Amino acid sequence: MVGGGQLARMTSQAATGLGVGFRVLAASPGDSAAQVVAGTDIGDYRSLPDLRAFAARCDVLTFDHEHVPGPHLIALERENVQVRPDAAALRFTQDKLAMRERLIGLGVACPRFAPVRTLADVEAFADGRWPAVLKTVSGGYDGKGVWVCESGAEAAAVLADAGLAHGLDLMAEEYVAFDRELAVLAARSPHRQGAVYPVVQTVQRDGICREVIAPAPGLTPARRAQAQALGLRIAEALGVTGLLAVEIFETPDGLLVNELAMRPHNTGHWTIEGARTSQFEQHLRAVLDLPLGSVAMAAPAAVMANVLGGDDADVYDRYIHVMAADPAVKVHMYGKAVRPGRKIGHVTVTGEDAADLADRARRAASYLRWGKEDGD
Amino acid sequence: MVGGGQLARMTSQAATGLGVGFRVLAASPGDSAAQVVAGTDIGDYRSLPDLRAFAARCDVLTFDHEHVPGPHLIALERENVQVRPDAAALRFTQDKLAMRERLIGLGVACPRFAPVRTLADVEAFADGRWPAVLKTVSGGYDGKGVWVCESGAEAAAVLADAGLAHGLDLMAEEYVAFDRELAVLAARSPHRQGAVYPVVQTVQRDGICREVIAPAPGLTPARRAQAQALGLRIAEALGVTGLLAVEIFETPDGLLVNELAMRPHNTGHWTIEGARTSQFEQHLRAVLDLPLGSVAMAAPAAVMANVLGGDDADVYDRYIHVMAADPAVKVHMYGKAVRPGRKIGHVTVTGEDAADLADRARRAASYLRWGKEDGD
Repeated sequence: MVGGGQLARMTSQAATGLGVGFRVLAASPGDSAAQVVAGTDIGDYRSLPDLRAFAARCDVLTFDHEHVPGPHLIALERENVQVRPDAAALRFTQDKLAMRERLIGLGVACPRFAPVRTLADVEAFADGRWPAVLKTVSGGYDGKGVWVCESGAEAAAVLADAGLAHGLDLMAEEYVAFDRELAVLAARSPHRQGAVYPVVQTVQRDGICREVIAPAPGLTPARRAQAQALGLRIAEALGVTGLLAVEIFETPDGLLVNELAMRPHNTGHWTIEGARTSQFEQHLRAVLDLPLGSVAMAAPAAVMANVLGGDDADVYDRYIHVMAADPAVKVHMYGKAVRPGRKIGHVTVTGEDAADLADRARRAASYLRWGKEDGD
Repeated sequence: MVGGGQLARMTSQAATGLGVGFRVLAASPGDSAAQVVAGTDIGDYRSLPDLRAFAARCDVLTFDHEHVPGPHLIALERENVQVRPDAAALRFTQDKLAMRERLIGLGVACPRFAPVRTLADVEAFADGRWPAVLKTVSGGYDGKGVWVCESGAEAAAVLADAGLAHGLDLMAEEYVAFDRELAVLAARSPHRQGAVYPVVQTVQRDGICREVIAPAPGLTPARRAQAQALGLRIAEALGVTGLLAVEIFETPDGLLVNELAMRPHNTGHWTIEGARTSQFEQHLRAVLDLPLGSVAMAAPAAVMANVLGGDDADVYDRYIHVMAADPAVKVHMYGKAVRPGRKIGHVTVTGEDAADLADRARRAASYLRWGKEDGD
């Protein structure tokens, strides 16, 4: 797995269980996964020689992020490296314009969008209806690379900074007044077996996923079926190998696809305790072309809350309180340095009543962040 | 954790989740845990300098086996190493005579026993009632170091080989005609918090644990309560820190304690999927003096079956069939070389009906061993 973040770290736990060899290409020995994985190589995912040396020690190459340059992926494939998902599929996570165009071609409903270079482009796109959203075409995450602009003046500032000063390609998207956000996680193997987890509701604050509720409360059977079919259909159409996470806006008029990722995803962390097969095991099974695991829930409901960094680095000191207050909360910490607002871990609670679980997960995550239960 | 076997390997998965630093002292880089744990030191658990060097890199020392020499443990304690469980508690897992005497002192029912040196000792113990059991006082496991003798002649052969030729101390025990075997797993922390898992039934063949059914089917509430109380009471009386596994004979006359272990135990592997807190996480929480986790079951029932080595080393080649046949079976393989009869992994199935789960677990374990479902 290229990338040494928490997704590789949690994938390593699944690999240990399956008894399959697992190596990580990390930027430094202090990376989240490098701290725990015996088979860690240090290297740069932007360097073809580093990727090539790493691939030579593996049977299959997969990824904990979408930032490996596309030309490198293509070069590796030409050298007969098993790249899963492959360069052709990963392109749709690296280029949001290509992704949007492909989805439109499949007849999948998406927010209205357009490439933009100048303020005139943005003004023409908005056509007097503000806010409008500006996004980088590639590389954004956790709210970075996304700007909600209330006016042409705000758009001009983003264009000047991101576009002119930093040379980023931008696109405009309609601002969607959604009812809530959903996500669906599918898996697809080289044998073309597909599997899709229950649809979840995600709660974002400041562009960062804060909570995931599985299954999404009150989702109509028709929308549930539609979202799951979307996941499987996009995975097949884009030729995904491994996981495909689809972030969805639920609006009064229907479902709109917001983002895609082709790797274990924050909206799937609940599966570690909440599903028969964790997303990490599922990703491994898919990229190794093993039969996919059961996506059935292991409990009627599960809620995950991300733990963000607060203003005190000593998170461990607070374990004792969280664990004593709720012995059934599952704590997952990533070994990452604490910085305010950074995802440093998550907690999951499984049980019967989603509202009760969400309350408990929020309390635990808040306590780990702030040393109190009512922070945000 | 001293010892690089599968118990350390599975404990590492829990440590990764908790985000606590985890090191292993393994005999070689190919050991089950050494294959996956970044923090692996190579050394000899029988060497005090090796133990001392390892302990210097850890805050707390714990164990995946009971074979570290007692004098070394005492020496480390004198040097203020946090040894958990401590030498005084571990002695009762290293010396079965001391264990039996202590349990008798506590009024805990055990099989009748006596130290033996000569055939005359054994004949006197048996008093004409055969079979009688001979055991090594220390070091036995998985049926090794236990002999069921049908006659004085058989006892004489064991005494000649184990006692005279290999210098092992032996003890005699009554042969218990039990109805079935049970096990109970308790945890105790330095704060003296205690927790005990549901009582399980274990199925042994040739002295090796083959299946564990949780909870033990048809156990009367009184016996369940008695077994759980035994676990907690022995853990407290022996001053255990960490896990205490108690193997129990259920007989028409009541419960008899057979063996003790103070570490994660084969009879607790089902907790990875079957309980809110796995035994591996629980052991870490206990030895780190964190509040203990919920011991509630995560499903109505769970069955674990050990995967033993068969006559074909290529187990991985059979994953595809096992996973396709039953996508909800959880496969845990230990990365160990396949030798006939050796424990190389386990499978767990969780759900509603224990008989159905046992059937599925047995099929999967048998297939992984033999490439067919009806092997034994």
